[in-house]
Amino acid sequence: MVELYFAPGACSFVPHVALEIVRAETGEAFEATLVKIHKGEQKTPEYLAMNPDGLVPVLVVEGKPLTQIVAICDYLDRRHPKLGLLPADPWARAIAMSQLAWMNNTVHPTFTRVFMTGQFAESDDAKAEVRKIAAANYRKHLERVAQWAGSADPFWFGARPSFHDAYALTLLRWGGLAGIDPDSLPAYKALTERVAASPAVAAVMARERIELNTFRKA
Amino acid sequence: MVELYFAPGACSFVPHVALEIVRAETGEAFEATLVKIHKGEQKTPEYLAMNPDGLVPVLVVEGKPLTQIVAICDYLDRRHPKLGLLPADPWARAIAMSQLAWMNNTVHPTFTRVFMTGQFAESDDAKAEVRKIAAANYRKHLERVAQWAGSADPFWFGARPSFHDAYALTLLRWGGLAGIDPDSLPAYKALTERVAASPAVAAVMARERIELNTFRKA
Repeated sequence: MVELYFAPGACSFVPHVALEIVRAETGEAFEATLVKIHKGEQKTPEYLAMNPDGLVPVLVVEGKPLTQIVAICDYLDRRHPKLGLLPADPWARAIAMSQLAWMNNTVHPTFTRVFMTGQFAESDDAKAEVRKIAAANYRKHLERVAQWAGSADPFWFGARPSFHDAYALTLLRWGGLAGIDPDSLPAYKALTERVAASPAVAAVMARERIELNTFRKA
Repeated sequence: MVELYFAPGACSFVPHVALEIVRAETGEAFEATLVKIHKGEQKTPEYLAMNPDGLVPVLVVEGKPLTQIVAICDYLDRRHPKLGLLPADPWARAIAMSQLAWMNNTVHPTFTRVFMTGQFAESDDAKAEVRKIAAANYRKHLERVAQWAGSADPFWFGARPSFHDAYALTLLRWGGLAGIDPDSLPAYKALTERVAASPAVAAVMARERIELNTFRKA
C-alpha cells in the first residue's frame, strides 16, 4: 500500500486527489497521513530522512519515499497508464507536463514569497517589498491559469478531474489568502467549483477539512 | 527538425546537451538558435508568443513550442526511449524525475534570487537581504547536488552523461558567479570536469562559448 504525507490545503492536495481517483477507479488503497506543520512535524529527523526539504508531499511506495509533485504525478500516471491521468498523445502529454512544471516552479514559489516571506528577507521593510512584488506576480500567474481553465470542458483533460484541476484549485485557494477575489476570475472560479463538487475531490477536501473559498472581503 | 532556443550558460544547456547526444547516437539533427538576452530578444512579441515568461529554453517541434526543462526532458526521453536519457526502471525513473524537478524548482530559483535580485525587491537594502539569504541557501543546495555527484560513476546514470549531469554542471557554473569556489566541492567539481570533457558536452560548450570555471578568487 502506498502512503501519502499531506498537509491540509498544501500542494500535497494534488497527489491526494490523484490517489483518491486511483482508489475509486482501481480499488487500490492508500493511506493519507496528516503532517502537522504548525507542530513542526515536517522538521523531525524521521521526516527529514524522507524529504530533506521538510516539505509535503512525500509518497511512500514499498517503504521508499518519493518527493516532488511533478515526479509523483508522472509516477502515478505511469503506474496506472489506463486511467489517463495525463494525456496519452505524446505532444498533449508534453504540454501537460509543461503546464504542471510551470505551476510547480513558477506559480507555487511566487505564493511562497507572499505567504512565507520570512524565508526570503529579514527586516519588515524588505519583507514588505518582497511580498508586494510577489503578490502582483501571483495575480498575473493566476490569470494565465484562468486562460487554461476557460478551456476546461468540464475538466482540464475532459470527463474527469486530474492533477491540473487539483493544482489549479489549490492555487486559487491560495490566491484567496493573498487577497485575490476569485470572483475576479469567473471562468477559473467556475472550474474550481466543478472540481470541488466531483466525488473524489469532495472526499479529499472533507478529509483535509478545507473549504473551497478562502477569500474574505476586506 | 526540432529547434532549440538557448542562451549561453543558461538552463537551456540541459536540453542542448540532450539534443547533441541524440544527434550523436541517432543522427537526428536539430537547430540551435541563440537568444541574445542582453538585447532583449526573449521579450519580443514573437518570442513571448512561444513562451509568455520570456525565458529560455523553448523547444520547437513541427512548429509548436514546448517550454519547461522538466517537460522537455520527459518529452525527449519518450521520443528516444532506447537512448536511456532517463532510467528505464520505473522507480529509478521516478527518483530521477524528482531530482530533476528539485534542481529546477528549488536550486534554480534560488540562484535567480542571487543573480537577478531586482525581480524580487526594489531598494538596495532589501535586495541585499534577499541576495544574502539566497546565496546561503544556494550553497546548501549545491551540497546536496554534491552528495549525488559523489555517486556518479562516471556519470549520473552510468556510462554516458544525460540531463542531470548537464544540469549539475550548469548549477556549479552559476555557483562560481555566486562566489562559491568549486574546489570546496571536490567530488562535484570532478563530475563536472568529466562531463565537460565528454564529446557531446564539449561540443555544446564550444557552441555556447562558455568555460567550465566561472569562479574568480576575490
